[in-house]
Amino acid sequence: MTLPPEHAGLPVLADSVRLADDGVHLLDRRVFPLERVWVHARTAEDVARAIEQMVTQSSGPYFATLWGMVLAAREAVADDPASARQRLAEAGRRFVATRPTNDQPRKAVDQVLAAVDADPGADVAEAALAGARAGDADYRRRSTEMGRAAAALLPDRARVLTHCWGDLYLVGMVQAALELGKQPVFFCTETRPYLQGARLTAETLDEMGVDTTLITDGMGASLFSRGEVDALVTASDRVSMDGHVINKVGTLQLAVAAHAFGVPFHALCHAPDPHSPTGSDVPIEYRDGEEVLHALGHRTASTRVRGLYPAFDVTPPRFVTTIATDRGAFAAERVGDYWKESQR
Amino acid sequence: MTLPPEHAGLPVLADSVRLADDGVHLLDRRVFPLERVWVHARTAEDVARAIEQMVTQSSGPYFATLWGMVLAAREAVADDPASARQRLAEAGRRFVATRPTNDQPRKAVDQVLAAVDADPGADVAEAALAGARAGDADYRRRSTEMGRAAAALLPDRARVLTHCWGDLYLVGMVQAALELGKQPVFFCTETRPYLQGARLTAETLDEMGVDTTLITDGMGASLFSRGEVDALVTASDRVSMDGHVINKVGTLQLAVAAHAFGVPFHALCHAPDPHSPTGSDVPIEYRDGEEVLHALGHRTASTRVRGLYPAFDVTPPRFVTTIATDRGAFAAERVGDYWKESQR
Repeated sequence: MTLPPEHAGLPVLADSVRLADDGVHLLDRRVFPLERVWVHARTAEDVARAIEQMVTQSSGPYFATLWGMVLAAREAVADDPASARQRLAEAGRRFVATRPTNDQPRKAVDQVLAAVDADPGADVAEAALAGARAGDADYRRRSTEMGRAAAALLPDRARVLTHCWGDLYLVGMVQAALELGKQPVFFCTETRPYLQGARLTAETLDEMGVDTTLITDGMGASLFSRGEVDALVTASDRVSMDGHVINKVGTLQLAVAAHAFGVPFHALCHAPDPHSPTGSDVPIEYRDGEEVLHALGHRTASTRVRGLYPAFDVTPPRFVTTIATDRGAFAAERVGDYWKESQR
Repeated sequence: MTLPPEHAGLPVLADSVRLADDGVHLLDRRVFPLERVWVHARTAEDVARAIEQMVTQSSGPYFATLWGMVLAAREAVADDPASARQRLAEAGRRFVATRPTNDQPRKAVDQVLAAVDADPGADVAEAALAGARAGDADYRRRSTEMGRAAAALLPDRARVLTHCWGDLYLVGMVQAALELGKQPVFFCTETRPYLQGARLTAETLDEMGVDTTLITDGMGASLFSRGEVDALVTASDRVSMDGHVINKVGTLQLAVAAHAFGVPFHALCHAPDPHSPTGSDVPIEYRDGEEVLHALGHRTASTRVRGLYPAFDVTPPRFVTTIATDRGAFAAERVGDYWKESQR
């Protein structure tokens, strides 16, 4: 089952969570592009479980939550307005709990609830849909603006190393760099255990016409030390107000290596999180260690060992050069200025 | 086909290249321990190709070359002594060329040729066999002594992170640490693309009764930053006279991260290489980038991307705390002192 694209001209992954009359359809990122399977979530709870099970990730949970909240509003169609709002708030708490570190679901929930609360007389399902659509447009606009700020940091023909899959953040930067005629080329890490880099980033950069070379997660420092990379660029799951970058595990190791060999590290983020004063305020999600023992379902490790899978790590601001936001680029230590009135 | 163990009581991998009447048998490290397959090399050339194809690696090429040189000597049985020596020297050049960075084959060739040259009147095949046996014993003795020097650097109940598969070097250190009652526990990286850590290190540490946790190649810095590791310890394919450590790609990234978070890095090496004054004197082997696109034969990457596989990297001495040798431990910058007369 594939729905027609909502956003023609974008790479497949930039339009891979779609609302339909019969529910939400999510492109299964656990196997894409080796297989192209869409998961059909009929209910809001189905959507929440799909997020937990990593059917979609990176920016995906944001869109999945927007459309999942619309399903929750539809499920409340027979409720009185107050009950419908309560049911929607409960669904929101369920979505926020899906991924403790990635806070995209919280942002999406806030978008939809704000739209519903803005017009108490409106039909809840219609208000939720309007809020979700506005959230979709807002996220894409902010990614484009942030991408422009990031692209401005890159030299012509920049050799960029990226980690994991930066989704619309990365797409925004690459589009802006291409528009500027900068002709970037990329190295991407495979990003074990889910191989988001090997599958999602590699596929999408080639879709966008960008020359791309895949390396293992251990090779970044080797490239930095030989002067083969001009910038490390990653998305972020969260940035604290004092410039700590929380992102897929492996980011810290690359950032430390880049710093040691004089390569700048630019992190992409719509905005720092005003609820996270510093890095230790962000909970780190531990996923099932069994993942580390397998690759795409095939056993890759001795049967005599256990795996450990902290899904994210925290890069202190001393290893971060710049945070590119939708209000421009900030030195990591100054990213809290994003929220100062003068910056608005 | 499995031959009876030559060295009872050792882990499987510490006795996994064996000479027999019908050739050399090599445990296939590309699939061990998920499969236990022995590759039968009938000729010296078969052995050289097995080394090139990674049937054995780490210390394995040393033993494979010892026994492969014995096969070469047997193949020269009908030659006159001068021709036999010449044929043996040619075989030696073939073995040295198998792996440009790993210099174990060169050491093994030197051992066998020295034994043959030491007694010009002796039967070449007998002299080669005696030389190979002496080389086997020498390598094991040196690994034991180096292991003692390394184990002395570890605190009690040390939490050690290791990368790739250190083979007899690591076995020597673990045996010594266990004898000292230090009860080390290990983290090991999976070591993409060949997964030596996930398969070989994880299996062998458990065989030795050591508690072991597997992580991906990107997680080391995360553990260092949280104070969960007391020492990074790896073997080395070569150490230059000024303390550069050449080892499996990924070592540099871990060493830089360990340094940034105050964790010592101890590299294991019988002796620094007097033919390599500095790191740039060591050629770095590039293997087939296709390996990065697969895990144990299964495709793991987009079909639209190419892979890059520099097999080794070079860690400068400023990121190395100690080199443990068979003559004791040296600060990295002082490892050249190994060859000073006073140290003998």
